[in-house]
Amino acid sequence: MIPRYSRPEMVSLWAPETRFAIWFEIEAHATDALAELGVVPRSAAKALWDWWATKPVIDVARIDAIEAVTKHDVIAFLTWVAENVGDEARFMHQGMTSSDVLDTCLAVQLARASDILLADLDALLEVLKRRAFQHKLTPTIGRSHGIHAEPVTFGLKLAEAYAEFARARKRLVAAREDIATCAISGAVGTFANIDPRVEAHVAEKLGLAIEPVSTQVIPRDRHAMFFATLGVIASSIERLAIEVRHLQRTEVLEAEEYFSPGQKGSSAMPHKRNPVLTENLTGLARMVRSATIPAMENVALWHERDISHSSVERYIGPDATITLDFALARLTGVMDKLVVYPARMQKNLDRMGGLVHSQRVLLALTQAGVSREDSYRLVQRNAMQVWESDGELSLLELLKGDDELTLSDAELEALFDLGYHFKQVDTIFDRVFQS
Amino acid sequence: MIPRYSRPEMVSLWAPETRFAIWFEIEAHATDALAELGVVPRSAAKALWDWWATKPVIDVARIDAIEAVTKHDVIAFLTWVAENVGDEARFMHQGMTSSDVLDTCLAVQLARASDILLADLDALLEVLKRRAFQHKLTPTIGRSHGIHAEPVTFGLKLAEAYAEFARARKRLVAAREDIATCAISGAVGTFANIDPRVEAHVAEKLGLAIEPVSTQVIPRDRHAMFFATLGVIASSIERLAIEVRHLQRTEVLEAEEYFSPGQKGSSAMPHKRNPVLTENLTGLARMVRSATIPAMENVALWHERDISHSSVERYIGPDATITLDFALARLTGVMDKLVVYPARMQKNLDRMGGLVHSQRVLLALTQAGVSREDSYRLVQRNAMQVWESDGELSLLELLKGDDELTLSDAELEALFDLGYHFKQVDTIFDRVFQS
Amino acid sequence: MIPRYSRPEMVSLWAPETRFAIWFEIEAHATDALAELGVVPRSAAKALWDWWATKPVIDVARIDAIEAVTKHDVIAFLTWVAENVGDEARFMHQGMTSSDVLDTCLAVQLARASDILLADLDALLEVLKRRAFQHKLTPTIGRSHGIHAEPVTFGLKLAEAYAEFARARKRLVAAREDIATCAISGAVGTFANIDPRVEAHVAEKLGLAIEPVSTQVIPRDRHAMFFATLGVIASSIERLAIEVRHLQRTEVLEAEEYFSPGQKGSSAMPHKRNPVLTENLTGLARMVRSATIPAMENVALWHERDISHSSVERYIGPDATITLDFALARLTGVMDKLVVYPARMQKNLDRMGGLVHSQRVLLALTQAGVSREDSYRLVQRNAMQVWESDGELSLLELLKGDDELTLSDAELEALFDLGYHFKQVDTIFDRVFQS
Amino acid sequence: MIPRYSRPEMVSLWAPETRFAIWFEIEAHATDALAELGVVPRSAAKALWDWWATKPVIDVARIDAIEAVTKHDVIAFLTWVAENVGDEARFMHQGMTSSDVLDTCLAVQLARASDILLADLDALLEVLKRRAFQHKLTPTIGRSHGIHAEPVTFGLKLAEAYAEFARARKRLVAAREDIATCAISGAVGTFANIDPRVEAHVAEKLGLAIEPVSTQVIPRDRHAMFFATLGVIASSIERLAIEVRHLQRTEVLEAEEYFSPGQKGSSAMPHKRNPVLTENLTGLARMVRSATIPAMENVALWHERDISHSSVERYIGPDATITLDFALARLTGVMDKLVVYPARMQKNLDRMGGLVHSQRVLLALTQAGVSREDSYRLVQRNAMQVWESDGELSLLELLKGDDELTLSDAELEALFDLGYHFKQVDTIFDRVFQS
Repeated sequence: MIPRYSRPEMVSLWAPETRFAIWFEIEAHATDALAELGVVPRSAAKALWDWWATKPVIDVARIDAIEAVTKHDVIAFLTWVAENVGDEARFMHQGMTSSDVLDTCLAVQLARASDILLADLDALLEVLKRRAFQHKLTPTIGRSHGIHAEPVTFGLKLAEAYAEFARARKRLVAAREDIATCAISGAVGTFANIDPRVEAHVAEKLGLAIEPVSTQVIPRDRHAMFFATLGVIASSIERLAIEVRHLQRTEVLEAEEYFSPGQKGSSAMPHKRNPVLTENLTGLARMVRSATIPAMENVALWHERDISHSSVERYIGPDATITLDFALARLTGVMDKLVVYPARMQKNLDRMGGLVHSQRVLLALTQAGVSREDSYRLVQRNAMQVWESDGELSLLELLKGDDELTLSDAELEALFDLGYHFKQVDTIFDRVFQS
Repeated sequence: MIPRYSRPEMVSLWAPETRFAIWFEIEAHATDALAELGVVPRSAAKALWDWWATKPVIDVARIDAIEAVTKHDVIAFLTWVAENVGDEARFMHQGMTSSDVLDTCLAVQLARASDILLADLDALLEVLKRRAFQHKLTPTIGRSHGIHAEPVTFGLKLAEAYAEFARARKRLVAAREDIATCAISGAVGTFANIDPRVEAHVAEKLGLAIEPVSTQVIPRDRHAMFFATLGVIASSIERLAIEVRHLQRTEVLEAEEYFSPGQKGSSAMPHKRNPVLTENLTGLARMVRSATIPAMENVALWHERDISHSSVERYIGPDATITLDFALARLTGVMDKLVVYPARMQKNLDRMGGLVHSQRVLLALTQAGVSREDSYRLVQRNAMQVWESDGELSLLELLKGDDELTLSDAELEALFDLGYHFKQVDTIFDRVFQS
Repeated sequence: MIPRYSRPEMVSLWAPETRFAIWFEIEAHATDALAELGVVPRSAAKALWDWWATKPVIDVARIDAIEAVTKHDVIAFLTWVAENVGDEARFMHQGMTSSDVLDTCLAVQLARASDILLADLDALLEVLKRRAFQHKLTPTIGRSHGIHAEPVTFGLKLAEAYAEFARARKRLVAAREDIATCAISGAVGTFANIDPRVEAHVAEKLGLAIEPVSTQVIPRDRHAMFFATLGVIASSIERLAIEVRHLQRTEVLEAEEYFSPGQKGSSAMPHKRNPVLTENLTGLARMVRSATIPAMENVALWHERDISHSSVERYIGPDATITLDFALARLTGVMDKLVVYPARMQKNLDRMGGLVHSQRVLLALTQAGVSREDSYRLVQRNAMQVWESDGELSLLELLKGDDELTLSDAELEALFDLGYHFKQVDTIFDRVFQS
Repeated sequence: MIPRYSRPEMVSLWAPETRFAIWFEIEAHATDALAELGVVPRSAAKALWDWWATKPVIDVARIDAIEAVTKHDVIAFLTWVAENVGDEARFMHQGMTSSDVLDTCLAVQLARASDILLADLDALLEVLKRRAFQHKLTPTIGRSHGIHAEPVTFGLKLAEAYAEFARARKRLVAAREDIATCAISGAVGTFANIDPRVEAHVAEKLGLAIEPVSTQVIPRDRHAMFFATLGVIASSIERLAIEVRHLQRTEVLEAEEYFSPGQKGSSAMPHKRNPVLTENLTGLARMVRSATIPAMENVALWHERDISHSSVERYIGPDATITLDFALARLTGVMDKLVVYPARMQKNLDRMGGLVHSQRVLLALTQAGVSREDSYRLVQRNAMQVWESDGELSLLELLKGDDELTLSDAELEALFDLGYHFKQVDTIFDRVFQS
């Protein structure tokens, strides 16, 4: 966790206090169920909740001190609770194993992290939608291979981003469902010493599904799928970030990250406004993605479990969620305030002397009965002249002057109409925003 | 693609002949729609289908030869079709761009690959279910950290695998849905030169959804999600493969890969039967997983598209699907024929002198009013003697002789009943196999 | 292995014929040593070499057929040799284990692959050096964050690439050394049944070092280091490829991949010249890099060995080396023929109205006694005007007209001298090309 | 950075105070050189060092507060220095760019981190050597595929680990050399505003090489190679960790992590001693390895630089080095205190009824003139009986009773001598420890 790439809500989710609070809830709910089943006295459960109602400060330092001796985190926690609650606490954790607590807690944390991330996505989607409609018909050049192709609108670019993050949202909902399970099944998952109804009770209270079959631990394919999903979302962030970086290049300059009046770009070059936020997002995407492979390597635990996954999750649990939360929020801010330069977009669109209309001419020729090969040859020989003039010559004028072309000047001029390209923008917007 | 790790159906899906056949179908269906819209003559579409009805051999060598000159694969293909169909072919591909064909074809291939993989998963699930019920109550020791813990049944291990691959199936269905989209939207996705109804028609004919917004290409977050899902499935294969490898270790030998009578293990050690199939699966899992990161790196294409994803997909498209198909089939074979040794399982279960029952004793003591700490101490001091005797001493006998213990011999004996551990096996099986 | 991304020499290195030829050499050299030690008759070794001298065709189909029965590749090979050589062949492989042959063969293949790659790097370095000197003083704008910074020369960019690939070469030499070891040490590496002098002899004949301690297999940390090194080299390829892609952008167009007269760019947009070779290299780099993690996962083989690494190496051995060989050759071709546009470079350099000289003015002010903050403010306020004019205004003229500035017009003009930036180009070239 | 997986020396290397101290040294040394060249007054350099000699507390909070306004870390630092040193500080950083400071600082940090890791490796090597010699002739079974193969000694296993980590050390020395370079070359690396002799001076003072050609930044292929090397080292850690985990399995139990008297294993199963340290190392290895790909993705910065690498390095710089440092130290502790059970090793070695000697019998038969196929058949039919008896039958006795065998009882007995396998242990130890 790097403070500068972190936001408080997600950070606090991974704080020891939060973890211990969730542990307590798991233990106390389980004790309720055990009491209901007659396994432990009702007074035990009551004692736990009575103490909890006093809103006790969670003494992380004390728990850590106990762990330093016992070398076991859950025993340390239980000991600390017992120090506070007294004798009744001995009924707590009856028939449970540490992983029942640890894995269910992780499920709660990842589910809550998902909720934060879903809210982040909603905020991003809202901004993208607003900006997309704002620039629904702002003409700009579409580029394939970095080369001018045909006109699009800036709104279409944003609609694509919207659709992509809408998919991200759907995937995250599925990933959340995958990890939000509760396992309280004992040392090897057989419920030998604990009734499955305890698990069912705790699961319901915490808003989790029950894990159909666990083996002391919740199977790690669930977590692998979760982190892989975060990696895909991060890759979509990278895509939009790189789009902005391209648009802000000096030679392109069709859009810019918002640059506050007091901000200094470079210590050496005062005129520079660098797309540092989106460059940063590019790097953050690499980091979120890097959790994918370790999470997959965690799946093949030995037999009923080994603990190799644990250290990995101590890193990637907080890091991937905190970083992705920050990245989504940063991207939302960038897109919200993005300074768009329609005039520059038009200027760039015009700079190729009309070459972007060449395909339309090609089609018109074919439809007029010229063979594909001849059409291609005719358009290409004029297009190449324009290209080599660096936009000084006009394709329309050259075509008008090409005797082999059978199209009239009026027909040619109609082929260079920009609006022609945008006639389906409504259709696309309907598909994207009304589904 | 490595022939020894390949199966013919999946291999043929990636053959040039299959690709060109799909290209043809896309082009011909599109021509149908164009004819319906009055853009091209109906005779053009008819000419295409008439030729196709003759079941022409796809002349890959000829298409490659044309590509060697044009350096463009779709143009080469169209030229070859025109050579065969004649003049009417010039109406084909009207208003389309190469990627309309390439990306929609890839969608068809990945969707078909998914169908093969889903069938593979179904076959694996069936085997796992059968073997799980066969060994539903076969006792075996559960191990955490590689150390004996408490009894489980071999059927429970297989039920866990079943549940894991049932999740894999569900994820693959979602991943299939993610990549099964059709884009026929022209050079930058604006439908400037082609009516969206063409796309809708082709999509319907090929069983694909329409891509709501494309940018010459189908966005690559879809493919990233697809390959990441394959990586997670591969990781589950690795887990089960490693379980088998562990069970076949000389000192454990609770199960073995089937070893045909004529098979030679080692050129040097004729007594050896090595778990080479599951070791192989471990390696194959690494390979399938390795497609994940390149697929994610493919997402951030520049502007409306660059072509950096293409070479990556030429590798991972076939490699990841062919390898996973092979791996699933191999795993199914291994699990189908797996030789299970219940007697050896029982022998291993007994070898620790009853230590596996220690937690139950611990619970009984706590429930009898002994403090958690005292219970732990009492059990631990006897357990340690058993442990250090390498299973020669019996925990039950030692506990009977420990004066500080207040439990009667009969009570102690009841605590060592194996059946106690299996009372919830039905519950778990119901959860896994009836949902 | 994808044919279109493959070159014949590297492909043939991985052909079965080559593998079997290397196997034969290992076995025959080992038989020589065994004969020298008196373990087998000299006639046995002679029989092998006599047969080999007849340049027998290696009957891959026959060997495969035997393997289909024995399910063991080395036994199949030995059987085939025995079929051809006759009775004397029974002394072959005495005391050896299959891995002695397999791993030593892989070492030979990777060493030879390294030699090809080193030659590739030499060819690339030569081209980079030639082009660097050709453009040693061709002015172009240096860009940080995609934004114009200060002038550099195009030769400096190429010198950086040269230095980077010179480092790549050095790393590859080290990686080659790491994998070029011979192990002939028997079933668990103890030399129980074979004298270490056999290993020494074979190693010497094949140009390998001896493996100090093997465990049936050569330890896989060596191979992990090898493939990681290829991944780093691939990343450097990606860097230079992306540089070319940026330079070829329509708005920048300072350089272009060579575009042969007959080549078609896009089926739809005849004016387009796309940087498809470098886009392709970007994707190939991802693939070479993707071998890194599986190679690292291969290191932790169980005990004296398991065979999980084998399937991974069947993929990445050929794929990573063939792809990198192709990529290096393609990059060499791109850089060799790269069309450079110095006039356009100058045009771009001038387009910012002299802003690129702002830091020099800043320094001059500071040196003239103005505080850093004031200098910054003075430069920034004029620079911002230029920036907002989209290069229409000239920084030099504005500064001349800024009364708060104490520098004379002549002093200011001197600060805008381009040559000032290139005075250390010789120094840098000396560092790069003379070391 | 996870506190529980961190050691103070490496952590402090990445503390803000350390970073700012290195920044100061770079700036002050540079000012010295600038003064020597007559660019700035000598008094400026003196003022800096005089202040530094007072051992000022580095006020991180103040620097952060300034950065919050300027949004630029190096400017914030320089401002803070100026607040403390006064007017003379304005000559600092003359002609430099932020990256000159940042990248050279990172080089210092990674070089120092390498020194700590090299010391870690030395400590590990020493322990491995000591334990290797201690168990040089302790017999244990060698296992391939997890199956008993032939005898080795436990010392040989440790010698292999020693050789592997000796290679790790050599690789780290090379990686350190790769990243230990100094760049002070200005905004785009041309030395336009700063003399190369400044760079040379600072490099010498900090023990770095000069970067032959930089582009504002030090090229990131260097860092990619560095982190890839850490990933390979981590993979070697994983290998040895997994070896220990295997040895500690209940059924094997040939060695155990040291288990202190007060330590509790499981809250539920008091008899359990789990290999938690080596399981933990398995997970930590995954994390160190996960830095490899992001570091490689960092190589392809745009043009003279973008800043996408920066966020990645803020994570992996500390995380990979801190985690690897901790892991090496933990592994050293595990191996130092590893409890080895030679009696159990012997017991396991004997449990297969002598099957481990089968290859030797095979060889003896071949040397006695029996064909390879017949020898194999004879040995195999007896070996299979032993195998199926689960070690109850003795191969030696069965062979004595097999009439088809022509070897005498005495000859057979000699073939079952364990010492035979260890005759080259000295040779191997000489190779490993005397080179």
